[in-house]
Amino acid sequence: MQVVVEPPAFRRALCRARAEGERIGLVPTMGSLHAGHRALMALAAAAHRHVAVSIFVNPLQFDRPEDLAGYPRDLGADLRACEEAGVATVFAPSDADMLPSGTATSVSVAGLGDRWEGSSRPGHLAGVATVVAKLFSLAGPCAAYFGEKDFQQLALVRRMAADLSMPVEVVGCPTVREPDGLALSSRNALLSPAERRAATVLWRALEAGRAAVAEGEDRPETVASAMSGTITAEPLASVDYAAAVDAADLTVPASLSQPAALRLLVAARIGSVRLIDNCAAPRPAEPVEDDRGLTAARAS
Amino acid sequence: MQVVVEPPAFRRALCRARAEGERIGLVPTMGSLHAGHRALMALAAAAHRHVAVSIFVNPLQFDRPEDLAGYPRDLGADLRACEEAGVATVFAPSDADMLPSGTATSVSVAGLGDRWEGSSRPGHLAGVATVVAKLFSLAGPCAAYFGEKDFQQLALVRRMAADLSMPVEVVGCPTVREPDGLALSSRNALLSPAERRAATVLWRALEAGRAAVAEGEDRPETVASAMSGTITAEPLASVDYAAAVDAADLTVPASLSQPAALRLLVAARIGSVRLIDNCAAPRPAEPVEDDRGLTAARAS
Repeated sequence: MQVVVEPPAFRRALCRARAEGERIGLVPTMGSLHAGHRALMALAAAAHRHVAVSIFVNPLQFDRPEDLAGYPRDLGADLRACEEAGVATVFAPSDADMLPSGTATSVSVAGLGDRWEGSSRPGHLAGVATVVAKLFSLAGPCAAYFGEKDFQQLALVRRMAADLSMPVEVVGCPTVREPDGLALSSRNALLSPAERRAATVLWRALEAGRAAVAEGEDRPETVASAMSGTITAEPLASVDYAAAVDAADLTVPASLSQPAALRLLVAARIGSVRLIDNCAAPRPAEPVEDDRGLTAARAS
Repeated sequence: MQVVVEPPAFRRALCRARAEGERIGLVPTMGSLHAGHRALMALAAAAHRHVAVSIFVNPLQFDRPEDLAGYPRDLGADLRACEEAGVATVFAPSDADMLPSGTATSVSVAGLGDRWEGSSRPGHLAGVATVVAKLFSLAGPCAAYFGEKDFQQLALVRRMAADLSMPVEVVGCPTVREPDGLALSSRNALLSPAERRAATVLWRALEAGRAAVAEGEDRPETVASAMSGTITAEPLASVDYAAAVDAADLTVPASLSQPAALRLLVAARIGSVRLIDNCAAPRPAEPVEDDRGLTAARAS
Protein backbone atom coordinates (compact mmCIF):
# COMPACT_ATOMS: atom_id res chain seq x y z
CA MET A 1 0.00 0.00 0.00
CA GLN A 2 1.35 3.39 -0.95
CA VAL A 3 0.49 6.51 1.03
CA VAL A 4 0.75 9.78 -0.87
CA VAL A 5 0.38 13.25 0.52
CA GLU A 6 0.83 15.60 -2.42
CA PRO A 7 -1.95 15.97 -5.00
CA PRO A 8 0.33 15.51 -8.05
CA ALA A 9 1.67 12.28 -6.54
CA PHE A 10 -1.88 11.01 -6.10
CA ARG A 11 -2.71 11.85 -9.71
CA ARG A 12 0.45 10.06 -10.92
CA ALA A 13 -0.22 6.96 -8.80
CA LEU A 14 -3.68 6.49 -10.31
CA CYS A 15 -2.50 7.34 -13.85
CA ARG A 16 0.15 4.63 -13.49
CA ALA A 17 -2.41 2.11 -12.27
CA ARG A 18 -4.72 2.93 -15.18
CA ALA A 19 -1.82 2.66 -17.62
CA GLU A 20 -1.30 -0.86 -16.26
CA GLY A 21 -4.91 -1.61 -17.16
CA GLU A 22 -6.35 -1.42 -13.68
CA ARG A 23 -9.77 0.04 -12.97
CA ILE A 24 -9.88 2.46 -10.05
CA GLY A 25 -12.36 2.35 -7.18
CA LEU A 26 -12.16 5.53 -5.12
CA VAL A 27 -13.46 5.86 -1.57
CA PRO A 28 -13.45 9.51 -0.43
CA THR A 29 -13.46 9.78 3.38
CA MET A 30 -12.77 12.20 6.22
CA GLY A 31 -10.89 9.45 8.03
CA SER A 32 -11.87 8.07 11.43
CA LEU A 33 -12.76 4.95 9.49
CA HIS A 34 -15.44 2.61 10.84
CA ALA A 35 -17.35 -0.42 9.57
CA GLY A 36 -19.33 1.84 7.21
CA HIS A 37 -16.11 2.81 5.46
CA ARG A 38 -14.94 -0.81 5.50
CA ALA A 39 -18.13 -1.75 3.67
CA LEU A 40 -17.38 0.94 1.06
CA MET A 41 -13.81 -0.34 0.65
CA ALA A 42 -15.05 -3.92 0.33
CA LEU A 43 -17.59 -2.96 -2.34
CA ALA A 44 -14.92 -0.98 -4.21
CA ALA A 45 -12.48 -3.90 -3.97
CA ALA A 46 -15.07 -6.34 -5.28
CA ALA A 47 -15.35 -4.36 -8.53
CA HIS A 48 -11.91 -2.76 -8.98
CA ARG A 49 -8.37 -4.07 -8.84
CA HIS A 50 -7.00 -0.77 -7.54
CA VAL A 51 -8.79 0.76 -4.54
CA ALA A 52 -7.79 4.28 -3.54
CA VAL A 53 -8.95 5.88 -0.30
CA SER A 54 -8.68 9.60 0.38
CA ILE A 55 -8.51 10.82 3.96
CA PHE A 56 -9.13 14.54 4.26
CA VAL A 57 -11.10 16.36 6.94
CA ASN A 58 -12.47 19.01 4.60
CA PRO A 59 -12.62 22.35 6.42
CA LEU A 60 -14.94 23.82 3.74
CA GLN A 61 -17.75 21.50 4.76
CA PHE A 62 -17.79 22.47 8.43
CA ASP A 63 -20.09 25.36 9.19
CA ARG A 64 -18.95 25.61 12.83
CA PRO A 65 -15.24 25.91 13.79
CA GLU A 66 -15.76 23.93 17.02
CA ASP A 67 -17.22 21.06 14.99
CA LEU A 68 -14.12 21.00 12.77
CA ALA A 69 -11.78 21.21 15.77
CA GLY A 70 -13.59 18.37 17.56
CA TYR A 71 -13.90 16.05 14.55
CA PRO A 72 -12.26 12.72 15.46
CA ARG A 73 -8.94 11.98 13.73
CA ASP A 74 -6.63 8.96 13.94
CA LEU A 75 -4.47 8.58 10.84
CA GLY A 76 -2.53 5.61 12.25
CA ALA A 77 -5.69 3.58 12.83
CA ASP A 78 -7.05 4.67 9.44
CA LEU A 79 -3.93 3.46 7.62
CA ARG A 80 -4.16 0.10 9.38
CA ALA A 81 -7.83 -0.19 8.35
CA CYS A 82 -6.88 0.59 4.73
CA GLU A 83 -4.04 -1.91 4.79
CA GLU A 84 -6.35 -4.63 6.13
CA ALA A 85 -8.91 -3.82 3.43
CA GLY A 86 -6.32 -4.34 0.69
CA VAL A 87 -6.30 -0.68 -0.37
CA ALA A 88 -3.61 0.10 -2.97
CA THR A 89 -3.29 3.86 -2.57
CA VAL A 90 -4.10 6.17 0.34
CA PHE A 91 -4.22 9.90 -0.36
CA ALA A 92 -3.84 11.91 2.85
CA PRO A 93 -3.20 15.53 1.86
CA SER A 94 -2.72 18.47 4.21
CA ASP A 95 -5.14 21.41 4.27
CA ALA A 96 -2.51 23.52 2.50
CA ASP A 97 -2.14 20.91 -0.24
CA MET A 98 -5.85 20.66 -0.92
CA LEU A 99 -6.82 24.29 -0.28
CA PRO A 100 -3.77 26.46 -0.84
CA SER A 101 -4.01 30.14 0.03
CA GLY A 102 -5.76 32.02 -2.75
CA THR A 103 -8.19 29.22 -3.53
CA ALA A 104 -11.35 30.96 -4.74
CA THR A 105 -13.33 28.43 -6.77
CA SER A 106 -16.46 26.77 -5.49
CA VAL A 107 -18.93 24.32 -6.93
CA SER A 108 -22.58 24.48 -5.96
CA VAL A 109 -25.72 22.61 -6.89
CA ALA A 110 -28.89 24.71 -6.98
CA GLY A 111 -32.01 23.24 -5.37
CA LEU A 112 -30.56 19.96 -4.17
CA GLY A 113 -27.78 21.88 -2.42
CA ASP A 114 -30.10 24.39 -0.75
CA ARG A 115 -32.51 22.10 1.12
CA TRP A 116 -32.16 20.19 4.45
CA GLU A 117 -28.42 19.99 5.15
CA GLY A 118 -27.97 22.93 2.78
CA SER A 119 -30.18 25.22 4.83
CA SER A 120 -29.28 23.76 8.24
CA ARG A 121 -25.52 24.03 7.58
CA PRO A 122 -24.86 27.00 5.28
CA GLY A 123 -21.91 26.35 2.98
CA HIS A 124 -21.68 22.68 3.95
CA LEU A 125 -22.84 21.10 0.69
CA ALA A 126 -20.93 23.57 -1.53
CA GLY A 127 -17.87 22.69 0.58
CA VAL A 128 -18.49 19.01 -0.10
CA ALA A 129 -19.06 19.56 -3.83
CA THR A 130 -15.95 21.71 -4.21
CA VAL A 131 -13.56 19.30 -2.53
CA VAL A 132 -15.10 16.24 -4.19
CA ALA A 133 -14.78 17.98 -7.59
CA LYS A 134 -11.08 18.54 -6.89
CA LEU A 135 -10.63 14.96 -5.72
CA PHE A 136 -12.35 13.67 -8.89
CA SER A 137 -10.09 15.88 -11.06
CA LEU A 138 -7.03 14.43 -9.35
CA ALA A 139 -8.27 10.84 -9.48
CA GLY A 140 -9.33 10.84 -13.13
CA PRO A 141 -11.67 8.17 -14.55
CA CYS A 142 -12.91 5.94 -11.72
CA ALA A 143 -15.90 4.70 -9.77
CA ALA A 144 -16.40 6.59 -6.51
CA TYR A 145 -18.15 5.05 -3.51
CA PHE A 146 -20.31 7.07 -1.12
CA GLY A 147 -22.49 5.86 1.76
CA GLU A 148 -26.26 6.29 1.65
CA LYS A 149 -26.02 7.49 5.26
CA ASP A 150 -25.31 10.93 3.80
CA PHE A 151 -28.12 10.57 1.29
CA GLN A 152 -28.25 14.23 0.25
CA GLN A 153 -24.47 14.31 -0.22
CA LEU A 154 -24.70 11.22 -2.42
CA ALA A 155 -27.48 12.79 -4.52
CA LEU A 156 -25.52 16.04 -4.77
CA VAL A 157 -22.28 14.37 -5.86
CA ARG A 158 -24.18 12.30 -8.41
CA ARG A 159 -25.87 15.44 -9.81
CA MET A 160 -22.55 17.33 -9.94
CA ALA A 161 -20.72 14.50 -11.69
CA ALA A 162 -23.49 14.25 -14.30
CA ASP A 163 -23.86 18.01 -14.80
CA LEU A 164 -20.12 18.56 -15.25
CA SER A 165 -19.64 15.34 -17.28
CA MET A 166 -17.02 14.08 -14.87
CA PRO A 167 -15.62 10.68 -15.89
CA VAL A 168 -16.71 9.22 -12.57
CA GLU A 169 -19.36 6.63 -11.83
CA VAL A 170 -20.89 7.54 -8.47
CA VAL A 171 -21.92 4.43 -6.51
CA GLY A 172 -24.14 4.59 -3.42
CA CYS A 173 -23.74 1.96 -0.70
CA PRO A 174 -26.25 0.90 1.98
CA THR A 175 -25.93 2.44 5.43
CA VAL A 176 -24.19 0.30 8.01
CA ARG A 177 -25.95 0.24 11.40
CA GLU A 178 -25.28 -0.88 14.94
CA PRO A 179 -27.51 -3.77 16.06
CA ASP A 180 -29.83 -1.23 17.74
CA GLY A 181 -30.28 0.66 14.47
CA LEU A 182 -27.90 3.61 15.01
CA ALA A 183 -26.23 4.45 11.70
CA LEU A 184 -22.44 4.29 11.94
CA SER A 185 -20.85 7.74 11.93
CA SER A 186 -17.50 9.06 13.03
CA ARG A 187 -19.45 11.51 15.17
CA ASN A 188 -20.89 8.66 17.27
CA ALA A 189 -17.52 8.60 19.08
CA LEU A 190 -18.38 12.04 20.48
CA LEU A 191 -21.52 10.75 22.29
CA SER A 192 -21.58 10.14 26.07
CA PRO A 193 -22.95 6.73 27.13
CA ALA A 194 -26.36 8.29 27.89
CA GLU A 195 -26.35 10.15 24.56
CA ARG A 196 -25.35 6.94 22.79
CA ARG A 197 -28.47 5.25 24.16
CA ALA A 198 -30.62 8.26 23.22
CA ALA A 199 -29.15 8.35 19.69
CA THR A 200 -31.20 5.34 18.62
CA VAL A 201 -34.09 7.83 18.45
CA LEU A 202 -33.14 8.69 14.85
CA TRP A 203 -33.70 5.13 13.73
CA ARG A 204 -36.84 4.86 15.83
CA ALA A 205 -38.15 8.02 14.17
CA LEU A 206 -37.43 6.57 10.72
CA GLU A 207 -39.23 3.36 11.70
CA ALA A 208 -42.24 5.38 12.82
CA GLY A 209 -42.25 7.24 9.50
CA ARG A 210 -41.84 4.03 7.56
CA ALA A 211 -44.73 2.40 9.42
CA ALA A 212 -46.97 5.37 8.60
CA VAL A 213 -46.08 5.21 4.89
CA ALA A 214 -46.49 1.42 4.83
CA GLU A 215 -49.98 1.87 6.28
CA GLY A 216 -50.91 4.13 3.37
CA GLU A 217 -50.40 7.63 4.84
CA ASP A 218 -49.96 9.96 1.88
CA ARG A 219 -49.64 13.34 3.60
CA PRO A 220 -45.95 14.19 3.97
CA GLU A 221 -46.61 16.45 6.97
CA THR A 222 -48.27 13.59 8.87
CA VAL A 223 -45.28 11.31 8.30
CA ALA A 224 -42.91 14.16 9.24
CA SER A 225 -44.88 14.70 12.47
CA ALA A 226 -44.67 11.01 13.34
CA MET A 227 -40.89 11.23 13.01
CA SER A 228 -40.35 14.56 14.79
CA GLY A 229 -42.74 13.48 17.54
CA THR A 230 -40.59 10.40 18.16
CA ILE A 231 -37.46 12.54 18.41
CA THR A 232 -39.09 15.17 20.65
CA ALA A 233 -40.14 12.45 23.09
CA GLU A 234 -36.46 11.71 23.78
CA PRO A 235 -35.26 14.17 26.46
CA LEU A 236 -31.64 14.30 25.24
CA ALA A 237 -32.66 14.93 21.61
CA SER A 238 -33.79 18.01 19.73
CA VAL A 239 -35.10 17.75 16.18
CA ASP A 240 -33.51 19.76 13.38
CA TYR A 241 -35.68 18.46 10.55
CA ALA A 242 -37.76 15.39 9.72
CA ALA A 243 -39.23 15.01 6.26
CA ALA A 244 -40.74 12.57 3.77
CA VAL A 245 -39.36 13.50 0.36
CA ASP A 246 -39.09 12.54 -3.29
CA ALA A 247 -35.94 10.39 -3.38
CA ALA A 248 -34.87 11.95 -6.70
CA ASP A 249 -34.58 15.62 -5.74
CA LEU A 250 -35.39 15.65 -2.02
CA THR A 251 -38.37 17.97 -2.45
CA VAL A 252 -41.53 17.45 -0.37
CA PRO A 253 -44.28 16.26 -2.74
CA ALA A 254 -47.90 17.37 -2.42
CA SER A 255 -48.82 13.71 -1.91
CA LEU A 256 -46.57 10.78 -1.03
CA SER A 257 -48.25 8.80 -3.79
CA GLN A 258 -46.61 11.01 -6.47
CA PRO A 259 -42.85 10.36 -6.46
CA ALA A 260 -41.30 7.31 -8.10
CA ALA A 261 -39.59 6.57 -4.78
CA LEU A 262 -39.76 8.05 -1.30
CA ARG A 263 -37.02 8.78 1.20
CA LEU A 264 -37.36 9.72 4.85
CA LEU A 265 -34.80 12.16 6.26
CA VAL A 266 -34.07 13.08 9.87
CA ALA A 267 -31.53 15.36 11.53
CA ALA A 268 -31.32 15.84 15.28
CA ARG A 269 -28.99 16.98 17.98
CA ILE A 270 -28.24 14.45 20.71
CA GLY A 271 -26.78 16.64 23.43
CA SER A 272 -24.36 18.75 21.39
CA VAL A 273 -23.70 16.14 18.68
CA ARG A 274 -25.66 16.59 15.45
CA LEU A 275 -26.58 13.33 13.70
CA ILE A 276 -28.47 12.59 10.49
CA ASP A 277 -30.07 9.44 9.09
CA ASN A 278 -32.44 8.38 6.33
CA CYS A 279 -34.16 5.36 4.82
CA ALA A 280 -36.37 4.31 1.95
CA ALA A 281 -40.10 4.11 2.67
CA PRO A 282 -42.06 1.58 0.59
CA ARG A 283 -45.74 2.38 0.05
CA PRO A 284 -48.42 -0.32 0.53
CA ALA A 285 -48.24 -1.46 -3.11
CA GLU A 286 -44.44 -1.58 -3.18
CA PRO A 287 -42.23 -4.54 -2.38
CA VAL A 288 -40.63 -4.19 1.05
CA GLU A 289 -36.95 -4.81 0.55
CA ASP A 290 -34.58 -5.11 3.47
CA ASP A 291 -33.06 -1.67 3.27
CA ARG A 292 -32.57 -1.35 6.97
CA GLY A 293 -28.99 -1.39 5.75
CA LEU A 294 -26.15 -3.64 6.81
CA THR A 295 -25.45 -4.24 10.45
CA ALA A 296 -21.99 -3.39 11.72
CA ALA A 297 -21.33 -7.04 12.53
CA ARG A 298 -22.23 -8.18 9.01
CA ALA A 299 -20.17 -5.41 7.41
CA SER A 300 -16.90 -5.95 9.29
CA MET B 1 -11.30 16.07 -39.47
CA GLN B 2 -14.02 14.48 -37.39
CA VAL B 3 -17.01 16.47 -36.20
CA VAL B 4 -18.74 15.13 -33.09
CA VAL B 5 -21.93 16.37 -31.55
CA GLU B 6 -22.52 14.20 -28.50
CA PRO B 7 -20.42 14.71 -25.37
CA PRO B 8 -19.54 11.01 -24.91
CA ALA B 9 -18.32 10.85 -28.52
CA PHE B 10 -16.08 13.85 -27.88
CA ARG B 11 -14.64 12.21 -24.77
CA ARG B 12 -14.01 8.96 -26.69
CA ALA B 13 -12.35 10.77 -29.61
CA LEU B 14 -9.82 12.46 -27.34
CA CYS B 15 -9.27 9.32 -25.25
CA ARG B 16 -8.45 7.44 -28.43
CA ALA B 17 -6.02 10.15 -29.56
CA ARG B 18 -4.29 10.09 -26.18
CA ALA B 19 -4.13 6.30 -26.29
CA GLU B 20 -2.27 6.67 -29.58
CA GLY B 21 0.25 8.86 -27.79
CA GLU B 22 -0.99 12.21 -29.07
CA ARG B 23 -1.03 15.33 -26.93
CA ILE B 24 -4.24 17.32 -27.10
CA GLY B 25 -4.49 21.07 -27.71
CA LEU B 26 -8.03 22.29 -27.01
CA VAL B 27 -9.44 25.57 -28.34
CA PRO B 28 -12.81 26.36 -26.70
CA THR B 29 -14.84 28.80 -28.82
CA MET B 30 -18.35 30.12 -29.35
CA GLY B 31 -17.89 29.76 -33.11
CA SER B 32 -18.06 32.66 -35.55
CA LEU B 33 -14.35 32.03 -35.96
CA HIS B 34 -12.07 34.90 -36.96
CA ALA B 35 -8.33 35.51 -37.19
CA GLY B 36 -8.11 35.59 -33.39
CA HIS B 37 -9.37 32.00 -33.27
CA ARG B 38 -7.09 31.05 -36.16
CA ALA B 39 -4.14 32.33 -34.11
CA LEU B 40 -5.28 30.15 -31.18
CA MET B 41 -5.59 27.10 -33.46
CA ALA B 42 -2.16 27.79 -34.95
CA LEU B 43 -0.57 28.06 -31.50
CA ALA B 44 -2.29 24.86 -30.39
CA ALA B 45 -1.18 23.07 -33.56
CA ALA B 46 2.42 24.18 -33.08
CA ALA B 47 2.58 22.38 -29.73
CA HIS B 48 0.13 19.47 -30.09
CA ARG B 49 -0.41 16.79 -32.70
CA HIS B 50 -4.16 16.63 -32.04
CA VAL B 51 -6.03 19.96 -32.03
CA ALA B 52 -9.64 19.90 -30.87
CA VAL B 53 -11.95 22.90 -31.26
CA SER B 54 -15.25 23.19 -29.43
CA ILE B 55 -17.99 25.36 -30.90
CA PHE B 56 -20.74 26.11 -28.41
CA VAL B 57 -22.62 29.37 -27.93
CA ASN B 58 -22.96 29.00 -24.18
CA PRO B 59 -26.35 30.34 -23.08
CA LEU B 60 -25.23 30.46 -19.42
CA GLN B 61 -22.75 33.21 -20.15
CA PHE B 62 -25.24 35.61 -21.73
CA ASP B 63 -26.87 37.94 -19.26
CA ARG B 64 -29.29 39.37 -21.85
CA PRO B 65 -31.54 37.12 -24.00
CA GLU B 66 -31.34 39.54 -26.98
CA ASP B 67 -27.54 39.32 -26.86
CA LEU B 68 -27.74 35.51 -27.05
CA ALA B 69 -30.31 35.63 -29.85
CA GLY B 70 -28.22 38.08 -31.86
CA TYR B 71 -24.86 36.38 -31.37
CA PRO B 72 -23.41 35.62 -34.84
CA ARG B 73 -23.41 31.93 -35.86
CA ASP B 74 -22.14 30.23 -39.01
CA LEU B 75 -21.25 26.58 -38.43
CA GLY B 76 -20.45 25.91 -42.09
CA ALA B 77 -17.85 28.67 -42.22
CA ASP B 78 -16.50 27.60 -38.83
CA LEU B 79 -15.99 24.00 -39.99
CA ARG B 80 -14.14 25.22 -43.09
CA ALA B 81 -11.89 27.40 -40.89
CA CYS B 82 -11.16 24.38 -38.66
CA GLU B 83 -10.44 22.17 -41.66
CA GLU B 84 -8.01 24.74 -43.08
CA ALA B 85 -6.28 25.03 -39.70
CA GLY B 86 -5.65 21.28 -39.61
CA VAL B 87 -7.96 20.66 -36.66
CA ALA B 88 -8.43 16.95 -35.89
CA THR B 89 -11.67 17.05 -33.89
CA VAL B 90 -14.50 19.56 -33.79
CA PHE B 91 -16.99 19.29 -30.94
CA ALA B 92 -20.25 21.09 -31.77
CA PRO B 93 -22.85 20.03 -29.18
CA SER B 94 -26.44 21.23 -28.96
CA ASP B 95 -27.72 23.19 -25.96
CA ALA B 96 -29.61 20.08 -24.83
CA ASP B 97 -26.42 18.00 -25.01
CA MET B 98 -24.36 20.41 -22.96
CA LEU B 99 -27.06 21.65 -20.58
CA PRO B 100 -29.74 18.97 -20.32
CA SER B 101 -32.89 19.79 -18.41
CA GLY B 102 -32.28 19.42 -14.68
CA THR B 103 -28.73 20.75 -14.82
CA ALA B 104 -28.18 22.45 -11.46
CA THR B 105 -24.43 22.63 -10.90
CA SER B 106 -22.45 25.82 -11.21
CA VAL B 107 -18.83 26.76 -10.73
CA SER B 108 -17.89 30.19 -9.46
CA VAL B 109 -14.68 31.98 -8.58
CA ALA B 110 -14.93 34.42 -5.66
CA GLY B 111 -13.28 37.81 -6.08
CA LEU B 112 -11.93 37.39 -9.59
CA GLY B 113 -15.42 36.39 -10.75
CA ASP B 114 -17.18 39.31 -9.04
CA ARG B 115 -15.32 42.30 -10.47
CA TRP B 116 -15.60 44.11 -13.87
CA GLU B 117 -17.32 41.67 -16.22
CA GLY B 118 -18.63 39.88 -13.13
CA SER B 119 -20.47 42.94 -11.85
CA SER B 120 -21.37 44.38 -15.28
CA ARG B 121 -22.81 41.08 -16.51
CA PRO B 122 -24.27 39.15 -13.55
CA GLY B 123 -23.89 35.40 -13.99
CA HIS B 124 -21.63 35.77 -17.03
CA LEU B 125 -18.38 34.55 -15.50
CA ALA B 126 -20.00 31.72 -13.52
CA GLY B 127 -21.62 30.69 -16.80
CA VAL B 128 -18.19 30.64 -18.44
CA ALA B 129 -16.59 28.71 -15.57
CA THR B 130 -19.37 26.12 -15.46
CA VAL B 131 -19.31 25.29 -19.15
CA VAL B 132 -15.51 25.37 -19.36
CA ALA B 133 -15.36 23.00 -16.37
CA LYS B 134 -17.66 20.60 -18.19
CA LEU B 135 -15.65 20.92 -21.38
CA PHE B 136 -12.43 20.20 -19.48
CA SER B 137 -14.03 17.13 -17.85
CA LEU B 138 -15.00 15.82 -21.27
CA ALA B 139 -11.65 16.63 -22.88
CA GLY B 140 -9.45 15.12 -20.18
CA PRO B 141 -5.73 15.95 -19.89
CA CYS B 142 -4.85 18.68 -22.42
CA ALA B 143 -3.58 22.19 -22.95
CA ALA B 144 -6.39 24.70 -23.49
CA TYR B 145 -5.92 27.92 -25.44
CA PHE B 146 -7.73 31.16 -24.56
CA GLY B 147 -7.25 34.64 -26.00
CA GLU B 148 -5.96 37.49 -23.85
CA LYS B 149 -8.73 39.61 -25.37
CA ASP B 150 -10.99 38.22 -22.66
CA PHE B 151 -8.34 38.76 -20.02
CA GLN B 152 -10.60 38.28 -17.01
CA GLN B 153 -12.01 35.08 -18.50
CA LEU B 154 -8.47 33.79 -19.02
CA ALA B 155 -7.52 34.64 -15.41
CA LEU B 156 -10.73 33.03 -14.14
CA VAL B 157 -10.26 29.80 -16.09
CA ARG B 158 -6.64 29.60 -14.95
CA ARG B 159 -7.69 30.08 -11.31
CA MET B 160 -10.48 27.49 -11.62
CA ALA B 161 -8.22 24.90 -13.24
CA ALA B 162 -5.61 25.37 -10.50
CA ASP B 163 -8.12 25.41 -7.63
CA LEU B 164 -9.90 22.26 -8.81
CA SER B 165 -6.64 20.52 -9.85
CA MET B 166 -7.91 20.00 -13.38
CA PRO B 167 -5.39 18.19 -15.58
CA VAL B 168 -5.39 21.13 -18.01
CA GLU B 169 -2.63 23.59 -18.83
CA VAL B 170 -4.31 26.92 -19.54
CA VAL B 171 -2.43 28.90 -22.20
CA GLY B 172 -3.10 32.59 -22.89
CA CYS B 173 -2.57 33.96 -26.41
CA PRO B 174 -1.98 37.57 -27.50
CA THR B 175 -4.97 39.55 -28.75
CA VAL B 176 -5.27 39.80 -32.51
CA ARG B 177 -6.12 43.32 -33.74
CA GLU B 178 -7.22 45.03 -36.92
CA PRO B 179 -4.61 47.41 -38.35
CA ASP B 180 -6.40 50.31 -36.63
CA GLY B 181 -6.11 48.63 -33.23
CA LEU B 182 -9.62 47.20 -32.84
CA ALA B 183 -9.40 43.83 -31.11
CA LEU B 184 -10.97 41.06 -33.17
CA SER B 185 -14.27 39.89 -31.75
CA SER B 186 -17.22 38.04 -33.18
CA ARG B 187 -19.34 40.95 -31.97
CA ASN B 188 -17.55 43.34 -34.37
CA ALA B 189 -19.77 41.90 -37.11
CA LEU B 190 -22.73 43.53 -35.35
CA LEU B 191 -21.31 47.09 -35.76
CA SER B 192 -22.63 49.50 -38.39
CA PRO B 193 -19.93 51.17 -40.54
CA ALA B 194 -20.06 54.31 -38.37
CA GLU B 195 -19.91 52.23 -35.19
CA ARG B 196 -17.00 50.25 -36.63
CA ARG B 197 -15.06 53.51 -37.04
CA ALA B 198 -16.02 54.62 -33.53
CA ALA B 199 -15.01 51.26 -32.04
CA THR B 200 -11.31 52.09 -32.31
CA VAL B 201 -11.94 54.24 -29.25
CA LEU B 202 -11.29 51.23 -27.00
CA TRP B 203 -7.76 50.87 -28.29
CA ARG B 204 -7.24 54.63 -28.23
CA ALA B 205 -8.36 54.64 -24.59
CA LEU B 206 -5.89 51.87 -23.76
CA GLU B 207 -3.12 53.80 -25.53
CA ALA B 208 -3.97 56.89 -23.49
CA GLY B 209 -3.81 54.82 -20.29
CA ARG B 210 -0.56 53.21 -21.37
CA ALA B 211 1.00 56.58 -22.11
CA ALA B 212 0.03 57.85 -18.66
CA VAL B 213 1.57 54.80 -16.96
CA ALA B 214 4.69 54.99 -19.13
CA GLU B 215 5.13 58.62 -18.01
CA GLY B 216 5.16 57.53 -14.37
CA GLU B 217 1.55 58.16 -13.29
CA ASP B 218 0.98 55.97 -10.25
CA ARG B 219 -2.59 56.90 -9.30
CA PRO B 220 -4.97 54.30 -10.75
CA GLU B 221 -7.87 56.76 -10.80
CA THR B 222 -5.88 59.20 -12.97
CA VAL B 223 -5.10 56.48 -15.50
CA ALA B 224 -8.73 55.32 -15.42
CA SER B 225 -9.88 58.91 -16.07
CA ALA B 226 -7.55 59.22 -19.05
CA MET B 227 -9.13 56.09 -20.52
CA SER B 228 -12.77 56.88 -19.74
CA GLY B 229 -12.26 60.47 -20.95
CA THR B 230 -11.09 59.13 -24.30
CA ILE B 231 -14.16 56.92 -24.59
CA THR B 232 -16.58 59.64 -23.50
CA ALA B 233 -15.22 61.97 -26.20
CA GLU B 234 -16.51 59.54 -28.85
CA PRO B 235 -20.19 60.37 -29.48
CA LEU B 236 -21.22 56.80 -30.41
CA ALA B 237 -19.54 55.29 -27.33
CA SER B 238 -20.55 55.03 -23.69
CA VAL B 239 -18.11 53.78 -21.09
CA ASP B 240 -18.98 50.83 -18.87
CA TYR B 241 -15.70 50.66 -16.94
CA ALA B 242 -12.08 51.67 -17.40
CA ALA B 243 -9.49 50.60 -14.85
CA ALA B 244 -5.81 50.13 -14.18
CA VAL B 245 -5.46 46.89 -12.18
CA ASP B 246 -3.08 44.34 -10.72
CA ALA B 247 -2.68 41.82 -13.56
CA ALA B 248 -2.73 38.93 -11.07
CA ASP B 249 -6.14 39.38 -9.46
CA LEU B 250 -7.62 42.38 -11.31
CA THR B 251 -7.95 44.45 -8.13
CA VAL B 252 -7.24 48.20 -8.20
CA PRO B 253 -4.04 48.77 -6.18
CA ALA B 254 -3.54 51.80 -3.95
CA SER B 255 -0.58 52.76 -6.13
CA LEU B 256 0.31 51.52 -9.60
CA SER B 257 3.88 51.00 -8.39
CA GLN B 258 2.78 48.09 -6.16
CA PRO B 259 1.70 45.17 -8.40
CA ALA B 260 4.21 42.90 -10.08
CA ALA B 261 2.48 43.67 -13.38
CA LEU B 262 -0.30 46.04 -14.45
CA ARG B 263 -3.19 45.54 -16.81
CA LEU B 264 -5.53 48.14 -18.26
CA LEU B 265 -9.15 47.12 -18.79
CA VAL B 266 -11.89 48.88 -20.74
CA ALA B 267 -15.51 48.03 -21.51
CA ALA B 268 -17.78 50.25 -23.57
CA ARG B 269 -20.92 50.20 -25.60
CA ILE B 270 -20.60 51.32 -29.22
CA GLY B 271 -24.18 51.97 -30.16
CA SER B 272 -25.86 48.86 -28.78
CA VAL B 273 -22.82 46.57 -29.09
CA ARG B 274 -20.79 46.02 -25.93
CA LEU B 275 -17.05 45.54 -26.50
CA ILE B 276 -14.15 44.94 -24.12
CA ASP B 277 -10.40 45.23 -24.51
CA ASN B 278 -7.25 45.27 -22.38
CA CYS B 279 -3.48 45.55 -22.55
CA ALA B 280 -0.37 45.42 -20.43
CA ALA B 281 0.98 48.76 -19.19
CA PRO B 282 4.74 48.87 -18.59
CA ARG B 283 5.92 51.39 -16.00
CA PRO B 284 8.91 53.69 -16.71
CA ALA B 285 11.48 51.24 -15.34
CA GLU B 286 10.01 48.25 -17.20
CA PRO B 287 10.96 46.96 -20.64
CA VAL B 288 8.36 47.94 -23.23
CA GLU B 289 7.50 44.74 -25.06
CA ASP B 290 5.38 44.75 -28.14
CA ASP B 291 2.18 43.52 -26.57
CA ARG B 292 -0.03 45.55 -28.82
CA GLY B 293 -0.90 42.03 -29.89
CA LEU B 294 -0.83 40.46 -33.33
CA THR B 295 -2.41 42.23 -36.26
CA ALA B 296 -5.11 40.39 -38.12
CA ALA B 297 -2.99 40.30 -41.27
CA ARG B 298 -0.06 38.69 -39.47
CA ALA B 299 -2.28 36.17 -37.71
CA SER B 300 -4.18 34.88 -40.72
